[in-house]
Amino acid sequence: MSAFRLGLLNPNSDARHTEAMRAVAAEALGPGHEVVAVTAAGAPSSIETATDEALAAAEVVQMVRETPGLDAYLIACFGDPGLHAARELTGAPVVGIGEAGFRAACLVASRFAVITTLGRGVPELEDAVDREGLSRRCVGVIPLEIPVHDQGSWNQNASDAIVAAGRRAMEESRAEALVLACGAMADTAGSVSRALGIPVCDGVSFGALLAYGLWRSGLRTSKVGAYGWPAPTPGNMPEVTAVRVE
Amino acid sequence: MSAFRLGLLNPNSDARHTEAMRAVAAEALGPGHEVVAVTAAGAPSSIETATDEALAAAEVVQMVRETPGLDAYLIACFGDPGLHAARELTGAPVVGIGEAGFRAACLVASRFAVITTLGRGVPELEDAVDREGLSRRCVGVIPLEIPVHDQGSWNQNASDAIVAAGRRAMEESRAEALVLACGAMADTAGSVSRALGIPVCDGVSFGALLAYGLWRSGLRTSKVGAYGWPAPTPGNMPEVTAVRVE
Amino acid sequence: MSAFRLGLLNPNSDARHTEAMRAVAAEALGPGHEVVAVTAAGAPSSIETATDEALAAAEVVQMVRETPGLDAYLIACFGDPGLHAARELTGAPVVGIGEAGFRAACLVASRFAVITTLGRGVPELEDAVDREGLSRRCVGVIPLEIPVHDQGSWNQNASDAIVAAGRRAMEESRAEALVLACGAMADTAGSVSRALGIPVCDGVSFGALLAYGLWRSGLRTSKVGAYGWPAPTPGNMPEVTAVRVE
Amino acid sequence: MSAFRLGLLNPNSDARHTEAMRAVAAEALGPGHEVVAVTAAGAPSSIETATDEALAAAEVVQMVRETPGLDAYLIACFGDPGLHAARELTGAPVVGIGEAGFRAACLVASRFAVITTLGRGVPELEDAVDREGLSRRCVGVIPLEIPVHDQGSWNQNASDAIVAAGRRAMEESRAEALVLACGAMADTAGSVSRALGIPVCDGVSFGALLAYGLWRSGLRTSKVGAYGWPAPTPGNMPEVTAVRVE
Amino acid sequence: MSAFRLGLLNPNSDARHTEAMRAVAAEALGPGHEVVAVTAAGAPSSIETATDEALAAAEVVQMVRETPGLDAYLIACFGDPGLHAARELTGAPVVGIGEAGFRAACLVASRFAVITTLGRGVPELEDAVDREGLSRRCVGVIPLEIPVHDQGSWNQNASDAIVAAGRRAMEESRAEALVLACGAMADTAGSVSRALGIPVCDGVSFGALLAYGLWRSGLRTSKVGAYGWPAPTPGNMPEVTAVRVE
Amino acid sequence: MSAFRLGLLNPNSDARHTEAMRAVAAEALGPGHEVVAVTAAGAPSSIETATDEALAAAEVVQMVRETPGLDAYLIACFGDPGLHAARELTGAPVVGIGEAGFRAACLVASRFAVITTLGRGVPELEDAVDREGLSRRCVGVIPLEIPVHDQGSWNQNASDAIVAAGRRAMEESRAEALVLACGAMADTAGSVSRALGIPVCDGVSFGALLAYGLWRSGLRTSKVGAYGWPAPTPGNMPEVTAVRVE
Repeated sequence: MSAFRLGLLNPNSDARHTEAMRAVAAEALGPGHEVVAVTAAGAPSSIETATDEALAAAEVVQMVRETPGLDAYLIACFGDPGLHAARELTGAPVVGIGEAGFRAACLVASRFAVITTLGRGVPELEDAVDREGLSRRCVGVIPLEIPVHDQGSWNQNASDAIVAAGRRAMEESRAEALVLACGAMADTAGSVSRALGIPVCDGVSFGALLAYGLWRSGLRTSKVGAYGWPAPTPGNMPEVTAVRVE
Repeated sequence: MSAFRLGLLNPNSDARHTEAMRAVAAEALGPGHEVVAVTAAGAPSSIETATDEALAAAEVVQMVRETPGLDAYLIACFGDPGLHAARELTGAPVVGIGEAGFRAACLVASRFAVITTLGRGVPELEDAVDREGLSRRCVGVIPLEIPVHDQGSWNQNASDAIVAAGRRAMEESRAEALVLACGAMADTAGSVSRALGIPVCDGVSFGALLAYGLWRSGLRTSKVGAYGWPAPTPGNMPEVTAVRVE
Repeated sequence: MSAFRLGLLNPNSDARHTEAMRAVAAEALGPGHEVVAVTAAGAPSSIETATDEALAAAEVVQMVRETPGLDAYLIACFGDPGLHAARELTGAPVVGIGEAGFRAACLVASRFAVITTLGRGVPELEDAVDREGLSRRCVGVIPLEIPVHDQGSWNQNASDAIVAAGRRAMEESRAEALVLACGAMADTAGSVSRALGIPVCDGVSFGALLAYGLWRSGLRTSKVGAYGWPAPTPGNMPEVTAVRVE
Repeated sequence: MSAFRLGLLNPNSDARHTEAMRAVAAEALGPGHEVVAVTAAGAPSSIETATDEALAAAEVVQMVRETPGLDAYLIACFGDPGLHAARELTGAPVVGIGEAGFRAACLVASRFAVITTLGRGVPELEDAVDREGLSRRCVGVIPLEIPVHDQGSWNQNASDAIVAAGRRAMEESRAEALVLACGAMADTAGSVSRALGIPVCDGVSFGALLAYGLWRSGLRTSKVGAYGWPAPTPGNMPEVTAVRVE
Repeated sequence: MSAFRLGLLNPNSDARHTEAMRAVAAEALGPGHEVVAVTAAGAPSSIETATDEALAAAEVVQMVRETPGLDAYLIACFGDPGLHAARELTGAPVVGIGEAGFRAACLVASRFAVITTLGRGVPELEDAVDREGLSRRCVGVIPLEIPVHDQGSWNQNASDAIVAAGRRAMEESRAEALVLACGAMADTAGSVSRALGIPVCDGVSFGALLAYGLWRSGLRTSKVGAYGWPAPTPGNMPEVTAVRVE
Repeated sequence: MSAFRLGLLNPNSDARHTEAMRAVAAEALGPGHEVVAVTAAGAPSSIETATDEALAAAEVVQMVRETPGLDAYLIACFGDPGLHAARELTGAPVVGIGEAGFRAACLVASRFAVITTLGRGVPELEDAVDREGLSRRCVGVIPLEIPVHDQGSWNQNASDAIVAAGRRAMEESRAEALVLACGAMADTAGSVSRALGIPVCDGVSFGALLAYGLWRSGLRTSKVGAYGWPAPTPGNMPEVTAVRVE
């Protein structure tokens, strides 16, 4: 079996997140495959507002352009910034960890809850669930009020908060699975799942495998219609600032 | 990397379809993995009506019960008969080729068309697209008026009809990808895609890889809520009739 | 006025339910009409999971085939198993008690709540409400955690639980009517309605009258399109097991 | 069986329509029942615009008030003017012929088309279908550009136009049933159905039977919440102008 | 800049409301513009039920007809009674304060709550939000159980109740703005906004400015299709009863 | 009446568009008000793809930051790039010309068609209409296959194409109004409207007036929840590149 080369594009500028997500994706794909992880050097260090997301999406455009030739790409921020733009800029398949996380939950549960960082992000996540056509299957979006930079398996408090929120969602809202709506939470999915006894979906792991699945199926991004190659226009060819970390 | 063992459950009684779909799934997964393909001996030879589907779903219940211990299951009929029941009857992940086909298209295109066998099945497919939350992304369901048993790469007429219908969908409805809504069409996806220059999604190939992805991510079907183990009741333990074909 | 002959198909194997529902339907239709009630001898004794429902739907196929020549049919299980298949197999009108119950509520109230047996069935009922296009009008699906076989007017505890749940739905969620989402609850509708002072809709009573109304209006199931007669296929002509109880 | 007394409220001032619809309803209910038909003397002679409908709804308020004591009411104009108001003003069940027509079609077909009078009314009918939650099941609203006052079985041209439009809807849009969106078309349903071979639903006939079904089931309009009795207010007690025609 | 002349149509018969709303609209438009305010002398004194609304809509038809020649019209009752009829009866733009209130909230907040008078009106407001396509953005409709005639800045209790309800909506439901669903609440918007620190939208103020904006943009009501001039029919030309108060 | 100062932010780098749209907005607002128009110097010269939009949104972030102190802002590109970000970055109201164009059409017509530049942009516009909750009211999105830089009143061919497309939409799809989905088309709205006899909505004109209306109503962007001020993070404070053109 030939090796699969995934481009993992971290839209924020925090290289620790890049490395943690690279490790999750590599573990998911297993030996024999390669994850080329890129950090958006010019982006905010975490993506928690629409402003952050607008800046991050522009960085994603740059990252896709400067990381050509891979088999597939994963946009590794839960808001999927720049996802449609990235699909225009490559013929390879492109997956966002947000869509991947929601999708994973729907394949193993009838109803799911979403755990996120800050309350201000709840409407955007509700809207994302709605755009995916999954409003009926989402029993709630629950903010921890713990910001992105405090998320991750290194912080036991954050994991404990996810478990507590997940338990409430199970008891009060009939959640059957959780979606972790932050790339930085990805490496806690296993321990949270063991604590609660339900599937806990992180988009990094399943997203890497969705990208792999598209590649194995020979499915590439359609170049007819919405995702056709963009015509070069003065100003849509920005300079490169991202840093590749293989 | 340990081997993945997929149970491919063909809800119809036509063993040729079982074998053709097994080959597609095995090719998609690649060497080192195993596809255990099962034919529903007691089911209709093709599934083209709600009556067929009701009978097929009962057979799926039996097939899951008599094919325990695999890593994941794929319901290999586009109507996904018995999908929810199968999720109750195992802790392993279960994927339907219908949901897989629709999902693949959404990951590589903004809008897709669905190619199906008979016109009478159009409403059911429209309803399935709607249940997946994808009505807005589907530009049409196009029947060929060629029944299931005449579908497959062995019949050039059927492939030609798919190409012609796909071309119309591209020109008149802005389709950017096709979904082949019949397991028996799966082995034509490659040639249709080459003819049209757009992604052509068959649920068997991508469905096998969705199942693989769930397994690699450690995601198993939630046993809390809708997919919990069913309590044994007089009458819900039917006898076995399916035939395993490895 | 000529007599109306209704086929009441009980998709479970519990003949007590068949008889109780037959009595409710006969009372609703009034003297001069006939209810031919059939029990699905090969089905589970109660339908509480997707597995049960898959098995029941196959039995419905058989029951319709072995009970020909009636004026209309009522599928007497709230999940409406096999409803679309039944519509293919007869030109007479076919009604499900689930759709009938939801519809009754919408004709006498702006908002309704649904009372069901087990919590695991809540997502399926929410999905059924959504398929009927009524999500906006349903203020909640409330499980009693009392299984089907303990439901019915003979069990005062079950009736009391329905009244208590209904009162909560009125006070906390502005329910204006109740839908009893279980055929076995049908004979409690009157007493619950008197206790709460709001309409309480059981699908057996109103479903029998919907079927009667279609018949009186001369409306038969369309044989053009989705509900056309299914072509005979090897395997879609199962043997008969149901038992007629007139 | 005790006699059922239905109040048929014609919101327009054309007594010929009242009589024609009374006959259709009486035929549907059969012998032993009574239809008390009322004409809105102060209303427009046909209801074809939102202006007409606003005036008609106010007349419906008056008609319900001056026709008390019946077992159920039928608002006999396809736009269902004043339906919610009427439900406030009586404890008896109230049905609109619009909701009845759509509902009948959904019980005997998977997809339906709507035949209406003027093109300007298409958006309002599309919106009504949407409010009923049935947009997915309606394949089109087709105007004949023949006004209300030229509709009815006495005008062969109108019937011919319905048949022609219905045939197009079957061939081009997969319509499996028709809904006649005008009370004055009600008495053509039988001949159109025979000509096309599909169910043709008029809301007068089935609406009368829906009302009968609610009455037989003991279901009365909820007086808790939206349809509670309105408190008397200066100005909401208009004078009576309608004329009863039994 | 030429002066703008707005017709403010109060569908209820309470002239105090007319005057209060006229003042709000005039203040919103600013000096140099004119508000011609009309009271529906024949309507209920407040609009709190569907019955009231049906009667009010007929009055709106009359008011538009007897107040010709203005630059735009504002239907000043939150249920927007007669809005579509009014659009048929004039070429000038017509705005309802309900649609205006919801729209204002969506332009300054991601999520809003609606404050209304009586609980019985909650379903109708939920339905109105849904018709506007805004269900996802509305976190709740909260009744004060204080009737229309006790609303207004003169009643401190009513204002206090709005503030309390708004605070709960902010804390429990993440409301970011309020919509005051009653014309009589309009003159409290400023003080409520100052008390809560969020935008508080009344449809009178913003509705007057929407009407102004349409006029300034040269946009008049389309006379092609749904809002075309209604053909005169016997009975759709009612007599005039409204009283102009400039 | 105090003067209103509107910030018109052109997300593309074509100063001709900035000036043309400034003139439209100034004409709409009338004398006594000021339009401060800004060009996104670092953006693509036209916005026709998701890539262009991602880059433009980042420019909008910068433009809002470097143009403080105005009464309201208008994002003058039909895709509304950066709209949510802009609402985070100011307490003043922010309006997008896309939402303004759709909204204008809904206030003067029951159904509208959208005229756009290239076919590849159709799905994005359909999605935008859906997010606004207006899918039911949009009868079609019609591309001219004439790019942005050839749009405008200076190009008679472009205007003629709009008129021809609009006429087709009226005849074949019952369009009652048009929305011009490109800022550069704004100055043709008047002539197209005169040619077709229906309202033609450009978002620049009505958007400027929506912004004015919010300002006059005292409504400012909510700083509670989704649009709260973003916390400064390393990387979300980009350098200034836009050029103010007053």
